Amino acid sequence: MRMSRYFLPVLKETPSEAQIVSHRYMLRAGMIKQSSAGIYSWLPLGYKVLKKIENIVHEEQARAGHLPMLMPTIQSADLWRESGRYDDYGEEMLRIKDRHDRDMLFTPTAEELITDIFRAHVGSYKDLPLTMYQIQWKFRDEVRPRFGVMRGREFYMKDGYNFDLTKEDAMHAYNRHLVSYLRTYERMGLQAIPMRADSGPIGGDDTHEFLVLADTGESEVFYDSAVTDLTFGDREIDYDNVEQCAGVMEEFTTKYARTDETHDEALFNAIPEARRKTARGIEVGQIFYFGTKYSEAMKATVQGPDGKPVPVHMGSHGIGVSRLLGAIIEASHDDKGIIWPEGVTPFHVGIVNLKQGDDEADAACESLYKALTALGLEPLYDDRDERAGGKFATMDLIGLPWRITVGPRGLKNGVVELTSRRTGESEELSPEEAVKKVAAIYDNH
Amino acid sequence: MRMSRYFLPVLKETPSEAQIVSHRYMLRAGMIKQSSAGIYSWLPLGYKVLKKIENIVHEEQARAGHLPMLMPTIQSADLWRESGRYDDYGEEMLRIKDRHDRDMLFTPTAEELITDIFRAHVGSYKDLPLTMYQIQWKFRDEVRPRFGVMRGREFYMKDGYNFDLTKEDAMHAYNRHLVSYLRTYERMGLQAIPMRADSGPIGGDDTHEFLVLADTGESEVFYDSAVTDLTFGDREIDYDNVEQCAGVMEEFTTKYARTDETHDEALFNAIPEARRKTARGIEVGQIFYFGTKYSEAMKATVQGPDGKPVPVHMGSHGIGVSRLLGAIIEASHDDKGIIWPEGVTPFHVGIVNLKQGDDEADAACESLYKALTALGLEPLYDDRDERAGGKFATMDLIGLPWRITVGPRGLKNGVVELTSRRTGESEELSPEEAVKKVAAIYDNH
Repeated sequence: MRMSRYFLPVLKETPSEAQIVSHRYMLRAGMIKQSSAGIYSWLPLGYKVLKKIENIVHEEQARAGHLPMLMPTIQSADLWRESGRYDDYGEEMLRIKDRHDRDMLFTPTAEELITDIFRAHVGSYKDLPLTMYQIQWKFRDEVRPRFGVMRGREFYMKDGYNFDLTKEDAMHAYNRHLVSYLRTYERMGLQAIPMRADSGPIGGDDTHEFLVLADTGESEVFYDSAVTDLTFGDREIDYDNVEQCAGVMEEFTTKYARTDETHDEALFNAIPEARRKTARGIEVGQIFYFGTKYSEAMKATVQGPDGKPVPVHMGSHGIGVSRLLGAIIEASHDDKGIIWPEGVTPFHVGIVNLKQGDDEADAACESLYKALTALGLEPLYDDRDERAGGKFATMDLIGLPWRITVGPRGLKNGVVELTSRRTGESEELSPEEAVKKVAAIYDNH
Repeated sequence: MRMSRYFLPVLKETPSEAQIVSHRYMLRAGMIKQSSAGIYSWLPLGYKVLKKIENIVHEEQARAGHLPMLMPTIQSADLWRESGRYDDYGEEMLRIKDRHDRDMLFTPTAEELITDIFRAHVGSYKDLPLTMYQIQWKFRDEVRPRFGVMRGREFYMKDGYNFDLTKEDAMHAYNRHLVSYLRTYERMGLQAIPMRADSGPIGGDDTHEFLVLADTGESEVFYDSAVTDLTFGDREIDYDNVEQCAGVMEEFTTKYARTDETHDEALFNAIPEARRKTARGIEVGQIFYFGTKYSEAMKATVQGPDGKPVPVHMGSHGIGVSRLLGAIIEASHDDKGIIWPEGVTPFHVGIVNLKQGDDEADAACESLYKALTALGLEPLYDDRDERAGGKFATMDLIGLPWRITVGPRGLKNGVVELTSRRTGESEELSPEEAVKKVAAIYDNH
């Protein structure tokens, strides 16, 4: 993309309403614009990151064998009355009357609707196991929406639902989700620690939240510092292998890590003092096993092997897709702006032309742009007739992890400059070497 | 995908509420499920086609240089009061009060919000031209939703908006959209004819609707049969080239083609009688130029070259993404089911194992499955222990354009059968040749 053709309304001033760094940078970098309290438009740059994150979630769900589908945002109140949650949910549910005066709502989650689909179409244990998920807009009418996309009213969420014959099978689905979530977050450059949590309005006993440690987190968390040494890495996983998934679950959840809701002072104090940590965390996902709560209330049964109807065991599993942009920025920024991890960066590399209009510099930039594009990379070329300082400030603010700087002086020596946004380190390379190096960096992403 | 792991709830009975063939087949093929009147869940198979269509739209918009972004579904009524449309829109607008009793609405279209974004961020003619678009859920509270996804209440739409300094520039944007839409529909295997239409609540003088001819169409259309001979084909287009885009516009809109709203009997009768055609059409898109209607009402001005503020010239452009599934099926089916065009088929090829459990047949299917997958194709392998007749009926119903049938008898002679869903013709080939042939077919899609 050429900057001259892009819509990147960078703000010089820090908007006064933004209290946390991710909100400030997302507004300043022209990624989002508030349209009403807690409701945002995603401008081209923000949309691009949102899609990158969405794609990673889709890819990892596909790997785990989960089926994508989509449920509507506007649902009838009837199903929610069946489960009993229509009254339970309180004022956070956006309630709507349609033109025929029927009670509708903007879905905050979809246990009821997916259970309705399941009971209409699945009759036999032979059709299990089944896990379906969607990435769809949700609405929660927060009293005080704040922190930008971190606690908005309209938000983009992945919500998945598993249906299994037994608790044992459902716990495998639970473990499978934990594994796929660990992979998902790591691909985004995040360490998200699974912590024992409270199930809230979803219900059920078994639940883990995934938390990213950050000073601006809303939750207080308590953990054994040994959990931060765990990484999932490149390991091969067979998602059908019950023992393998259970092994990962054990590895990542045995050490103490809890939110304040489930914190146990006695257990915590049993950890060696040097490893006892208290911090703040941003919740970026949660997995639940809630057994037959919805299947019993809504009569979602299958015929078991003995011919008798049994209510299915269920769980649900969420990733806060739009919230993740905020979480990633909270975890990865400096005082000049965002520092995107390679896995989610909106453009792979920025090209800064120090002397727009200079024939040689223009030609070198064009040729870099074409070479990078030909390799399947997306460069953002700042081709505007602006001062170098302004171009650098914009690139730093929007946070592309790599920048190639092209100027007449370097070109005289046959070199351009490749700079890492994270370390600030630069090296001089021939244009060909710079392209090769950037391509090699992204081969792993 | 293996059928045994897929969620494909095929119905034997034709649901009584479905009046048209696309609605019937989408329900029977397990693509959608109604959740309330005019509101549907997209089950895995339907979701897959929806995404294919969405991707084609994105690719063609990118080619035309239009920038993707996303606006929220829930918007404040304030902006709609500014343009005057809050009162104009009538009961089709889903009006909502949030917990603080503020007037909100579920967006049926987004001229107001995009204009608000524009006026907040763009100040100079130097930032023009600009075209941004989104593919987002919309809601129109139809009195009598019907025909499945063809006239639902919650629907998925591409809506794009251009901002230009002059009417001339805006007409180039109009032409550019026409060209990109022609390409878009052709890639989906559709002939969508641009017809002069009425602008309705969007406003403006210049507007063309794109119509697919089908008996079940809601609009009566009148056209010169010569328009059905026009195809866009493979031609190269430079979207920046004003003359080239204008040439395509002229080629595709000079011959008579109008909906009943703008039909002119005298002009129609001037066509040679043999070429005068009346038919029904399904609207799958519309482009508008409405000048300064919104920019004046909402004060969206830029500083012109002479330093004076001028209201921008705008247009908006829509493609009914979810509706397209219905339109494609209406245009492409037989009495056994859907016939997907190669460009949008949910799976590239079906594999039917005539004798599940037979070692040789199972191994041949597995090896076909792997070979196709390795080439980047997505096969749907019916690995269930079912009768061949049932497997064929399911494949015919869900409409994959190609099927490979594998049975012990053929394997003895070293062959499998490759069948075209459209023609019903089969040929016997070695498994390797069958894979090669399927790959060659999709090389062009």
